[in-house]
Amino acid sequence: MKTWLTLTTLFFLGVVINSYASAKKTNISQQISYPDGWQRWASIAISHRTDNNTIRVILGNETAIKAARSGQTVPWPDGSIIGKVVWKDTQLKDWQAATAPGAFIHAEFMEKDSKKYKESYGWGWARWVGLDQKPFTNGNRVCIECHTPVKNQDWVFTKPARFPQ
Amino acid sequence: MKTWLTLTTLFFLGVVINSYASAKKTNISQQISYPDGWQRWASIAISHRTDNNTIRVILGNETAIKAARSGQTVPWPDGSIIGKVVWKDTQLKDWQAATAPGAFIHAEFMEKDSKKYKESYGWGWARWVGLDQKPFTNGNRVCIECHTPVKNQDWVFTKPARFPQ
Repeated sequence: MKTWLTLTTLFFLGVVINSYASAKKTNISQQISYPDGWQRWASIAISHRTDNNTIRVILGNETAIKAARSGQTVPWPDGSIIGKVVWKDTQLKDWQAATAPGAFIHAEFMEKDSKKYKESYGWGWARWVGLDQKPFTNGNRVCIECHTPVKNQDWVFTKPARFPQ
Repeated sequence: MKTWLTLTTLFFLGVVINSYASAKKTNISQQISYPDGWQRWASIAISHRTDNNTIRVILGNETAIKAARSGQTVPWPDGSIIGKVVWKDTQLKDWQAATAPGAFIHAEFMEKDSKKYKESYGWGWARWVGLDQKPFTNGNRVCIECHTPVKNQDWVFTKPARFPQ
């Protein structure tokens, strides 16, 4: 009985560990893998959209930040990952004329690789939704259609903010 | 003549090097030294002020980011430096209902040290203005007065945005 219990426990432990590993591995939204550590990336810009009441910070990996700070973004260099982190816009309690992040909505990413992502204009497109970061899996068509107005600036809306050197 | 010229050149070279070193050393706004490398710090939040048409990203050094992400910010721990980077708000050309950073205005910092800055509520207050980062030297009274409405949240307006783990 004791041996049977131990074996059963080991079996279920194995299943749990395996599911966790699979969840990590399949954490892909459309084309790109989850960019671990993006929460600590430096900023490229910010934006506020009044049509859907959201406020956003635009972050970048090391390659993207170097490109942004030196103004080399048309085109963005291969290896750049740009992240757009989106919150519901809310009024600041202590300053009526200010808005700030409320509920977290999603984090969106574009990864540049002109060869790998040749079919989608040089970019891999992805979105992870909610605080539990559920991958968006409805295809990249919706991303690309929305970004079409900025195809002449390498498909990116964001113009890097000017930072002092 | 040649020796005299060489000596004069060396003298002026010395003066130039020395002035440069002094400029670096005295790059202090009111209470705190220039926080080198803040341009690569991670984000704590963002804000948009409609009363003065500015858009801001709030950044933090390592200590501040750790505190922000774990919700330990009343009070902020000693060693925290919070930076507020302010741009003129401008309409995005390619998305009418969005605003984004225009001209850079200034970068403001609060450095927490409950002993060193005991006289100014535990914080050192500073601002560097324009892309050439000219130190603001009109005293910290103006900073403190503006922040008085939030003295109960350790003098900081910013409530850290929620980030996925």
